Amino acid sequence: METKFLDRAIELAEFGMEQNHGGPFGCVIVKDGAIIAEGHNRVTSDNDPTAHAEIVAIRKACDELNDFQLTDCDIYTSCEPCPMCIGAIYWARPNKVYYAASREDAAEAGFDDHFIYEELNVPPDDRTISMKSAERKKAIRVFEKWIKKEDKIDY
Amino acid sequence: METKFLDRAIELAEFGMEQNHGGPFGCVIVKDGAIIAEGHNRVTSDNDPTAHAEIVAIRKACDELNDFQLTDCDIYTSCEPCPMCIGAIYWARPNKVYYAASREDAAEAGFDDHFIYEELNVPPDDRTISMKSAERKKAIRVFEKWIKKEDKIDY
Repeated sequence: METKFLDRAIELAEFGMEQNHGGPFGCVIVKDGAIIAEGHNRVTSDNDPTAHAEIVAIRKACDELNDFQLTDCDIYTSCEPCPMCIGAIYWARPNKVYYAASREDAAEAGFDDHFIYEELNVPPDDRTISMKSAERKKAIRVFEKWIKKEDKIDY
Repeated sequence: METKFLDRAIELAEFGMEQNHGGPFGCVIVKDGAIIAEGHNRVTSDNDPTAHAEIVAIRKACDELNDFQLTDCDIYTSCEPCPMCIGAIYWARPNKVYYAASREDAAEAGFDDHFIYEELNVPPDDRTISMKSAERKKAIRVFEKWIKKEDKIDY
């Protein structure tokens, strides 16, 4: 862990906030001791609810590496990642994550993701945003084609 | 719930797979009875681990609406959303979600997100991708500035 990378993530958090790009969150992605991508929250300026600092930085880093994986990379972020960003981190498969503020600190600043953690453990149909299934068999037919597909790229 | 929108999501899943853009997943977003955005998985073609069908469609729909919220929208997706996409859905705040295949069906086709659900319930430091905290006080100082900021856009 190198403090200077967390400091840079925190600097980006403050920069994005001051520019009115979105919430006070920043992130850098490090490979071989150097920053390969930086991001800050751009939700309100980009009209993109997925533009959290981590997602912005992950997309940039993958673009930089020309890969859909962050192999041997570390993520430094100014705040504990939300469930969406944790999901993105698991799909991107970096080495380690370092964060500064906790989710409780974020909640005190008005960014409460505790509810999302809870909802993930609720059956889809019972969630506050209800998630109902239909047409399952039609979708499975596409999965069967995927399983048999010979030129697929696994990820 | 309108079957035709799930059918379209499934069609997009098959299209994306056949084009080798990524996994067999499609999604449409509906407002006032009409599709306002479509997406399919583009992880491997775009080198973007966050380019799941739902995230692609949410970003397009928000761009279309010029808003960072999907107020009064419904999401139709060919498969039960993964934890990353559920997070994105909660931040986007649509009305309802309809999906076709289940997470178990996806796991049989090689897309197992059960592990991510489990990891979300593990303390950050104990996760397989370890998430450690440092420099907390510096980051909190930025949150304190956010709390006091008068021209902030809440989201």
